[in-house]
Amino acid sequence: MPSQMSKRRNPKPLSGAGAATIIRPRIAFGPACSLGPGKIDLLRAVADTGSISAGARALGLSYKRAWLLIDTLNRGFGRPVVERSVGGRGGGGARLTPLGAALVRHYAAIEAACQQAAAAELAALRAVVSKGR
Amino acid sequence: MPSQMSKRRNPKPLSGAGAATIIRPRIAFGPACSLGPGKIDLLRAVADTGSISAGARALGLSYKRAWLLIDTLNRGFGRPVVERSVGGRGGGGARLTPLGAALVRHYAAIEAACQQAAAAELAALRAVVSKGR
Repeated sequence: MPSQMSKRRNPKPLSGAGAATIIRPRIAFGPACSLGPGKIDLLRAVADTGSISAGARALGLSYKRAWLLIDTLNRGFGRPVVERSVGGRGGGGARLTPLGAALVRHYAAIEAACQQAAAAELAALRAVVSKGR
Repeated sequence: MPSQMSKRRNPKPLSGAGAATIIRPRIAFGPACSLGPGKIDLLRAVADTGSISAGARALGLSYKRAWLLIDTLNRGFGRPVVERSVGGRGGGGARLTPLGAALVRHYAAIEAACQQAAAAELAALRAVVSKGR
C-alpha cells in the first residue's frame, strides 16, 4: 500500500492542466526483500540530511520506523545500506554505504525508465479515470 | 511501503539461478489517489472469486481491510471500482465495474512496459546487490 511518506512526494492533484501521473516502482528481489518508494525516499533523506533522525523527521516518520525500514534493507541485502559517519559538526551522523548509494542511483534510473516506457499507457489510463469527472 | 499482501506475490528467493527481480509500479494520480500492487492484487482477486470476502481471503486480508482499500479507490476516482452482482449461486457477490476492469487492464500493460524498459538497469542493480553474497 502507499505509505504516508511517499504520498507526500506526489505533488499534483488529479484534475487540472498540470496534473502529473507518476510511476514509482517497487522492485521485488524476493519474498523478504523489496525496494520501493518509501524506503528510497528515506535513503535519499538520510543522504540529504546526513542523519537518520533528521531524514526521518523530514519525511514525518518516527526514528523507530525509519530505523526499522533501514534494518529491513540491511537484513534483506545482507549488508548495511547506512553507516555512521564520525566527527564533523554535531559529532557525526549517518551516510549511505556504497550499496545504499547504488540502490538510490539505480532506483532513479529504473524510475525514469518506467515513467518513459509507460507514458502512452499512462495517458490512456488517465483518460479512463478522468472520464465522468 | 510494501504491504504484506503484495509480498506474497513475490515468488522467488533473492539468490539462485531462477530468481526473478520483479517491478511492480505504483501509479500516483495525485496526493490522495494512487494505484499500486496491493490494490491491484485485490481487484484481481475480486474479479477471480466474484466476491470481496473471497478475494480478501485469497490474499490473507480481513474483509474490513479489503473494503477499506476498495473504498479508497472509489473515493479517489469518484466512482465505484466494484459493484454488487445480484443472483447466481450463493445469492450474488461482487464484480469489477468497467472502471475497475480498466484499472486492472491498464495496470497490467504498465507493469509489463516497466519490466521490459528497466530490464538492463535491473540486471545492473541485481549485480550490485548480489556482490558479496
